[in-house]
Amino acid sequence: MAKVTGLEGVVAGETKIGWVDGEKGYLVYRGYWAKELAVSKTYEEVAYLLWNGHLPDAEELAQLKAQMAAERVIPEYLCKMLDLYPASVPLMLVLQSAVAALGDEENATWPPTLKQAVRLTAMLPSIIAYRYRSLQGLEPLQSLPELGHAANYLYLLTGKLPEEAHVQALSAYLILCMEHGMNASTFAGRVVLSTESDICAAVAGSIGAMKGPLHGGAPYEVISMLEEIGTKERAEPWLRGKLEAGEKLMGFGHRIYKTKDPRAEALQIATLTMIGKDAYFDLALHVEATAVALLEEYKPGRRLFTNVEFYAAAILKALQLAPEIFTPTFTAGRIVGWTAHLLEQSAHNRIFRPQSTYIGPMPESETI
Amino acid sequence: MAKVTGLEGVVAGETKIGWVDGEKGYLVYRGYWAKELAVSKTYEEVAYLLWNGHLPDAEELAQLKAQMAAERVIPEYLCKMLDLYPASVPLMLVLQSAVAALGDEENATWPPTLKQAVRLTAMLPSIIAYRYRSLQGLEPLQSLPELGHAANYLYLLTGKLPEEAHVQALSAYLILCMEHGMNASTFAGRVVLSTESDICAAVAGSIGAMKGPLHGGAPYEVISMLEEIGTKERAEPWLRGKLEAGEKLMGFGHRIYKTKDPRAEALQIATLTMIGKDAYFDLALHVEATAVALLEEYKPGRRLFTNVEFYAAAILKALQLAPEIFTPTFTAGRIVGWTAHLLEQSAHNRIFRPQSTYIGPMPESETI
Repeated sequence: MAKVTGLEGVVAGETKIGWVDGEKGYLVYRGYWAKELAVSKTYEEVAYLLWNGHLPDAEELAQLKAQMAAERVIPEYLCKMLDLYPASVPLMLVLQSAVAALGDEENATWPPTLKQAVRLTAMLPSIIAYRYRSLQGLEPLQSLPELGHAANYLYLLTGKLPEEAHVQALSAYLILCMEHGMNASTFAGRVVLSTESDICAAVAGSIGAMKGPLHGGAPYEVISMLEEIGTKERAEPWLRGKLEAGEKLMGFGHRIYKTKDPRAEALQIATLTMIGKDAYFDLALHVEATAVALLEEYKPGRRLFTNVEFYAAAILKALQLAPEIFTPTFTAGRIVGWTAHLLEQSAHNRIFRPQSTYIGPMPESETI
Repeated sequence: MAKVTGLEGVVAGETKIGWVDGEKGYLVYRGYWAKELAVSKTYEEVAYLLWNGHLPDAEELAQLKAQMAAERVIPEYLCKMLDLYPASVPLMLVLQSAVAALGDEENATWPPTLKQAVRLTAMLPSIIAYRYRSLQGLEPLQSLPELGHAANYLYLLTGKLPEEAHVQALSAYLILCMEHGMNASTFAGRVVLSTESDICAAVAGSIGAMKGPLHGGAPYEVISMLEEIGTKERAEPWLRGKLEAGEKLMGFGHRIYKTKDPRAEALQIATLTMIGKDAYFDLALHVEATAVALLEEYKPGRRLFTNVEFYAAAILKALQLAPEIFTPTFTAGRIVGWTAHLLEQSAHNRIFRPQSTYIGPMPESETI
């Protein structure tokens, strides 16, 4: 059997962008607590921070907002392409394909530029929404320049001017998705870029990695759990039944966080104004509280807390986004971290070329 | 400054597929010397070996050939898409985008299948040739089922039934490109797949890495050198001039091979029948012999030999393939190794999730 190490515990490089400490429950973006940024800053402010290393002043922020609003428009050829993918190609592969297709002489240079990072980030929600609506037989919508990035994304998906509470929740979620150290998708993008490839090729690589459920999540599973439970009254007996049967509860525990997931903590705060307004969201909160208590009862000391995926499912469902939009929405956040890492990689580039150990048969002696 | 290690010397996993020993000049595919396979087997035979671990018997080979011939046809929607990419999107990004676009419910499953590997490998030359001819304003051609993979690729590009000597040379080149251990593109594909993504997403990731000149090569550089030299008589003074000026000669020396590149050795044999028939190829051989002798004179003991890229440029140019086809042709070989590695990865999967060292500013103490 050929063993794959997964490079667990191996340091692949240094970074100034983000710091994850799963034991302590820390998530830091460029010297700031991600959970504080998520509840106090906009998408554009945190994107600026991750790309540039400092928070923007008023002028810098105005400039970035104007730039991003201007870059939302999908080129015409790409709209035509988005109409051609068969319905059976998953949205994440459509995104991967579309981002590669954006790589013309302006977008696909070595080294990559901040302008390219801003453009891809600004355009991604438009591509997601175009394809999503087209699959539902709905006309695509034009972005509203007066809306910020998160609000405009919601508008492009739903066609309605979004409520402030929903924008806050989505914005916090997107910010908390932006960066998470040398995760599989960020790492894949750095490996692609390291051959002196380009930002489109590398982000397309990252999207390919994000597509896998071990990374991009399986939001259906949390949703199905909440749907199976259905009412607050059924939560405790249903969860107890699962735990008695030795089954895993979806949305609790995290490979890295051995304490509270700081992203879940921040989302709890960012969604306070949603409480009492949406029966589904209230159910989710009730399930969460019940599950955490029961996990402590059944698995004492295991420190299994609510993870970001649970909140993501609860929020995105309360915002009436379909499950196929969940991983693309995660992507619309993480693309900021990817592009920040790619700019960092290009500034100190070295090709990734690890070793492998050959354990196959050996050849006869040479004859030529 | 944020240092990137490139994971040099780090073992990322075990493999039964290929073994590279740069000190000894060894390249082994599943227990066979690649250089022997290249001059004695067809593309299909070696692809079978890399995918299945043993050479095919007559029936297994006939079956694979029939399967590959049948899988050459590009789906209609993808042809339409290939007409839409702007001319300024490089062919490698078009390929990356197209492979992701093939990821419908049959081609993009977890785990990936051998059938998917065969299909992508069979179809890639058709996509390259379709786009290449369309950019030149030429009608795309239908594959000829009686031709093997390498011969059909040449036919699809040129529209002419290829000479046997050319098929031999191209076939040997493609076989020698198939596999090279945990190189950047193979590694990128494994990282993408490791999230339980799919073969289309992963091969698209690999193509993105192959696009970079540090990996996919810069064939223009060898070609320009040969063109600048122009005639046999000018070779020695021209090369001497470069070496006197301390400049690097393109196509000599390799990051991994510190002795003869076994791929260059095999290509020397595979192209014997081309000698004396093509002035360009003869010039290349003369330049090679002169350069190797001069390198020993100017840099004694440095062991700088002709690398595979020099031969690739000489062969592909003699076959009248345009330089923009060089890296895609390399890709049409390497896709066999990629897909073999992806099947191996999926059989013993573990998500790639290395660490990074945070060297950015530290946050203030927590306030939420």
